[in-house]
Amino acid sequence: MGDTFGRLLRLTTFGESHGGGVGGVLDGVPPGLALDAPAIQAELDRRRPGQSALTTQRKESDTVEFLSGLDPEGRTLGTALAFLVRNTDADPRAYAPFKDRYRPSHADFTYEARYGLRAWAGGGRASARETISRVAGGAVARQVLTALGPVEVVAWVDRVGDVQATVDPDTVTHDAVDAHLTRCPDPTAARAMEARIREVRAQGDTIGGVVRCVARGIPAGLGDPVFDKLDADLAKAMMSLPAAKGFEVGSGYAGTRLTGLAHNDPFVPDPTLGIATRSNHSGGIQGGISNGMAIALSVAFKPVATVFRDQDTVDRSGQATTVKPRGRHDPCVLPRAVPIVEAMTCLVLADHWLRWRGQVGDPPPVPPAATSPARGGAR
Amino acid sequence: MGDTFGRLLRLTTFGESHGGGVGGVLDGVPPGLALDAPAIQAELDRRRPGQSALTTQRKESDTVEFLSGLDPEGRTLGTALAFLVRNTDADPRAYAPFKDRYRPSHADFTYEARYGLRAWAGGGRASARETISRVAGGAVARQVLTALGPVEVVAWVDRVGDVQATVDPDTVTHDAVDAHLTRCPDPTAARAMEARIREVRAQGDTIGGVVRCVARGIPAGLGDPVFDKLDADLAKAMMSLPAAKGFEVGSGYAGTRLTGLAHNDPFVPDPTLGIATRSNHSGGIQGGISNGMAIALSVAFKPVATVFRDQDTVDRSGQATTVKPRGRHDPCVLPRAVPIVEAMTCLVLADHWLRWRGQVGDPPPVPPAATSPARGGAR
Amino acid sequence: MGDTFGRLLRLTTFGESHGGGVGGVLDGVPPGLALDAPAIQAELDRRRPGQSALTTQRKESDTVEFLSGLDPEGRTLGTALAFLVRNTDADPRAYAPFKDRYRPSHADFTYEARYGLRAWAGGGRASARETISRVAGGAVARQVLTALGPVEVVAWVDRVGDVQATVDPDTVTHDAVDAHLTRCPDPTAARAMEARIREVRAQGDTIGGVVRCVARGIPAGLGDPVFDKLDADLAKAMMSLPAAKGFEVGSGYAGTRLTGLAHNDPFVPDPTLGIATRSNHSGGIQGGISNGMAIALSVAFKPVATVFRDQDTVDRSGQATTVKPRGRHDPCVLPRAVPIVEAMTCLVLADHWLRWRGQVGDPPPVPPAATSPARGGAR
Amino acid sequence: MGDTFGRLLRLTTFGESHGGGVGGVLDGVPPGLALDAPAIQAELDRRRPGQSALTTQRKESDTVEFLSGLDPEGRTLGTALAFLVRNTDADPRAYAPFKDRYRPSHADFTYEARYGLRAWAGGGRASARETISRVAGGAVARQVLTALGPVEVVAWVDRVGDVQATVDPDTVTHDAVDAHLTRCPDPTAARAMEARIREVRAQGDTIGGVVRCVARGIPAGLGDPVFDKLDADLAKAMMSLPAAKGFEVGSGYAGTRLTGLAHNDPFVPDPTLGIATRSNHSGGIQGGISNGMAIALSVAFKPVATVFRDQDTVDRSGQATTVKPRGRHDPCVLPRAVPIVEAMTCLVLADHWLRWRGQVGDPPPVPPAATSPARGGAR
Repeated sequence: MGDTFGRLLRLTTFGESHGGGVGGVLDGVPPGLALDAPAIQAELDRRRPGQSALTTQRKESDTVEFLSGLDPEGRTLGTALAFLVRNTDADPRAYAPFKDRYRPSHADFTYEARYGLRAWAGGGRASARETISRVAGGAVARQVLTALGPVEVVAWVDRVGDVQATVDPDTVTHDAVDAHLTRCPDPTAARAMEARIREVRAQGDTIGGVVRCVARGIPAGLGDPVFDKLDADLAKAMMSLPAAKGFEVGSGYAGTRLTGLAHNDPFVPDPTLGIATRSNHSGGIQGGISNGMAIALSVAFKPVATVFRDQDTVDRSGQATTVKPRGRHDPCVLPRAVPIVEAMTCLVLADHWLRWRGQVGDPPPVPPAATSPARGGAR
Repeated sequence: MGDTFGRLLRLTTFGESHGGGVGGVLDGVPPGLALDAPAIQAELDRRRPGQSALTTQRKESDTVEFLSGLDPEGRTLGTALAFLVRNTDADPRAYAPFKDRYRPSHADFTYEARYGLRAWAGGGRASARETISRVAGGAVARQVLTALGPVEVVAWVDRVGDVQATVDPDTVTHDAVDAHLTRCPDPTAARAMEARIREVRAQGDTIGGVVRCVARGIPAGLGDPVFDKLDADLAKAMMSLPAAKGFEVGSGYAGTRLTGLAHNDPFVPDPTLGIATRSNHSGGIQGGISNGMAIALSVAFKPVATVFRDQDTVDRSGQATTVKPRGRHDPCVLPRAVPIVEAMTCLVLADHWLRWRGQVGDPPPVPPAATSPARGGAR
Repeated sequence: MGDTFGRLLRLTTFGESHGGGVGGVLDGVPPGLALDAPAIQAELDRRRPGQSALTTQRKESDTVEFLSGLDPEGRTLGTALAFLVRNTDADPRAYAPFKDRYRPSHADFTYEARYGLRAWAGGGRASARETISRVAGGAVARQVLTALGPVEVVAWVDRVGDVQATVDPDTVTHDAVDAHLTRCPDPTAARAMEARIREVRAQGDTIGGVVRCVARGIPAGLGDPVFDKLDADLAKAMMSLPAAKGFEVGSGYAGTRLTGLAHNDPFVPDPTLGIATRSNHSGGIQGGISNGMAIALSVAFKPVATVFRDQDTVDRSGQATTVKPRGRHDPCVLPRAVPIVEAMTCLVLADHWLRWRGQVGDPPPVPPAATSPARGGAR
Repeated sequence: MGDTFGRLLRLTTFGESHGGGVGGVLDGVPPGLALDAPAIQAELDRRRPGQSALTTQRKESDTVEFLSGLDPEGRTLGTALAFLVRNTDADPRAYAPFKDRYRPSHADFTYEARYGLRAWAGGGRASARETISRVAGGAVARQVLTALGPVEVVAWVDRVGDVQATVDPDTVTHDAVDAHLTRCPDPTAARAMEARIREVRAQGDTIGGVVRCVARGIPAGLGDPVFDKLDADLAKAMMSLPAAKGFEVGSGYAGTRLTGLAHNDPFVPDPTLGIATRSNHSGGIQGGISNGMAIALSVAFKPVATVFRDQDTVDRSGQATTVKPRGRHDPCVLPRAVPIVEAMTCLVLADHWLRWRGQVGDPPPVPPAATSPARGGAR
């Protein structure tokens, strides 16, 4: 019963990697929105396998079909928007060796422990293919956000292994991100990342890293303390992604080394926002509520568990054995994780914006200093 | 509408720092549990202000009253368990200077943006006093867990500023944690942490750090992919805490620098668990589901925002001004955060255990190798 | 885990009849509302025992204390509004005879079956005292509704046993309802109902009946198909009340005897609403969504189970025995059910209004013919 | 955001009558269940249009495809079970006359008021075709129930217009129900109902009636007071059905005319159940929790709104006009409502059984008298 995400804008997903398909139902979409279906397909294409030399060679067109929720002109009806992406290139034979052996650091063992059986032919719900539904739902959420305000959500690969990029979160663009197949907008780092990924792949090995994401143009006021804080829901969204091992907002772990004087973000008058902060260690969120500055987060992705080398493991009877994965796998999930992180960010932000509007009305009540016409602007 | 947490075991909290009191309703507690009320009070005492030279001097006995959900013998009825802790030492005058000025990196501005007004006399829901409800609810959840299995949940202060402790997560105990007022079980590091905290306090400044937490004895099988993964719900729980800026499970950010071969946790036969892993980079969770190994997480807490120095800010009309906080505040939240992190961990684990039992029954179906009588044991 | 009601406006309640008290947490209240506390107390007084010769003589002042969610001026903060009503006149001794015997048609046996134990000293959560929390929460919801539009929610006793009142739902007022202690606004029927209630009470017996409720001034557009239809949520709200055995909206069971031609409500132009219907068999709801006409529902309440006569039953060991209740009980719940039905109606309507505003904005998009300035008016 | 139903077993549905198809996602299904797919298709066939002379002549095979949640052997994986039924016989032209005119007592006007636009070509989500998803989900829930205990859920047409059947709820069977195309198991009444339906159809008119449903074999203990009482959730389930105007449990409205002495259900020792009640005015539910007796409910369905006669209405600009529906419609929904009522009953019961197991374990704690081995038996 963990396949639904969100309160007012709710995404329910389904699908295994080797079955009829993957898809979802997005409930609560505001009505009357002229859905940009090509933009949704474009996001799926950014996530698709086989898109570059750095990703798995599994071939899937990942073409999305909308099953419900649209009128003949393509406008949202406000009712459940359902979509389906068929599986076409499934190869269960590649998984036969793992039917009775647990691949290390995969979910084979834990799914069996949880459910008593598992979809061994492809990873089931633990397959990264599940994220198709997130990307499709998030692409709709992005259009919801854009209808609400001049919001930009941009993610990028910030680090691969030890290769660290230098990126300005206030100015980074989608074009810069997509300019290199690593999805790192720092060209020098991007080349080094590519080299590192090719190196580990040549060794049958894999590598992890960090994706950063920024949301610009979110007005002050989104978030529902005390449990549904904006950063808490973003954390859940990101930590529900395959391979995620860590989450930060704003200064994150590095900020814990500072003193309060150095870490605090002084408020300053701002011609655009009315009120801004001089620094943004808060990552755009204070007390669980957006403050109008750019929302900044990062996600740590572990190295892909599928390494093409013999590894110790046990079989289903508990006996020691070895396993050597084969099949088609990414040596590094980071480039393909970028659209997924954006999708989850959009889902959380759109849900919270609708929740906020529900409770306080539209336009919301504002404190005196926040009445600038540009409030909610794209800073 | 963000004041409820959990699916089957649900905590709803209420209360501002300066009002009638704080409390909560815990719904879904298994019936017939002989509640250990002193143990709950003891957890509240660990969180209480004024408990040591390192914490705020606000005096609150934080005595909990149970309003419902117990029979005369103190057994849980299975119906809503409500509790209340009265506020007694509120001092709204200390907050008068902040009525029209936003304290940097506090939630003053964002609550006004969210709601159009705020409880300026004490921080409202953004006060750390809100965490009383979490600790009380979590203390009950711990007793639920203990009734289900030999579970131990232990948190500690792992780093303050740059002072890093060395702690063995497999053996660390509550007693070792509580042996020093910093709640760091590494005596050498504890002394250095205390010195660092005293130093920043003397400067009117504050400092951040990291709390780690381990849950031992959790059976393989807890967690509800794809969105309600165990680590996703733990992440939300932790990132909903005041001052939290980061979350890790297992190897976290450091693990992203490894290759897959180094990071993978090989499965090995284990006389106690049936199946164990040789290393635990996974932090006891694979694919969002517990694997029977110790669950290991960390939380980054920023330095306390209340520094006793003049700081730049703006007033409610958006004009530049300065503010110098006064009142009673912790120079470092880490020691008091320890019981709070434990509480949230217990809430998530107990909720997921009940969800699991609901879906699969009790005892759950198990894969062949996991049928050891000691499955779910306290490793 | 059944103690929370609502999606955006969420009421969580707690409390047994014989313990620390009963109360609740209302989450999601719009901020900045100047709460009319005396009006809330007045609703509680309408529900209170001992208010007339027709109700139980248990003496409770039922004074409500607000624990959180208000600023010093009494305005809602938008955060969790918690309230508590202490129990003062509990008499557990009256219940001693039922400790080991199940009172017929009470919840003694089922609570034991559900939880393995029960709060035998007073009925626990099955006590009608639980409805205090609903009335307090509903009274706040009524103020939320009133802030949103000129809404009137009026319930009345429509039938007691076989005594049927004649009441015009378009014009009935609170004053007319409260003019007689039966809360029946038809004076002739009210007198007959009172006589009937006194008659059954003199026999140690009890009697059931029907409460009707009308909500006027609800705009067209509230309700969330397909499961959260407005009438579905109203049905759940009403059927969750103690002693409720039936629910109708609009024409209800009687309407099933008509043909479609007779039952359909023709649309007609209306100077006030823009579009109205000539008849209102729909009860103001079509397809699960309000249509701007008065929302009309009824609830069937069974006769009170506590009859002061020997009755056959079994004891906890399953042996046949008899039981003769004593204590203080209403011979007829109908008069006191009136404010409770109103409260639940207000909770559902306010929740749906906020949900609607969240999804579609404020003001909502409207079809061409519904653009009259008086849309949402008090018809 | 109203397209999800249930807590642990959660059904999310989608689909309009004239689009890609209708379907749903059922989350929380216990794993390892060998799904009987033909039985699910059989339930859909019972709901299908065109199955008899009494129903709409729209031709749809309503063949269900399972998209996810099953392993290759057809066993449930415990993860989201998704299914899809394609639309094949849509005829949007039949709806062209209603594009700008609101059909009386349909949802045309209210959907426009709710969302600002509507799927005029077929009724959108308000089409009875939506109930396909309920029937498919409910058929799975029935198999979940059957795996938990010897549960039988049987519904039938109890009244059409003024034609009342006489049916014994303790013995009525599916075969008896399906023996006549009216789905009334009383042959005499069934013939009279058929005659009445043919009569109104010949007049271009329609007729309503009552469906009753009984669930036998449900153990004592299901239901989650105070809001999620078993009868409250059943009421919501039923009142969310198209055309439902009323709901009763047990004695319903008729019971309100009795006195408490006549209405109470005395407990008696029972060789099979341990404890039973002599009468069953409670309808198997006391205090919102099942008591082990047969659960008995009824649903009132209004006459179908589509009558083939000129009716007064208004157009989208608010001007008076007339409308005369055409197309393919049932003169009486009752026969096809039978499997839908069963489906919703199964969904509620299975969800509550899982919730109960989650909170109290399996087997649950039981009161002394309820320890008979046959507890939960099929009485």
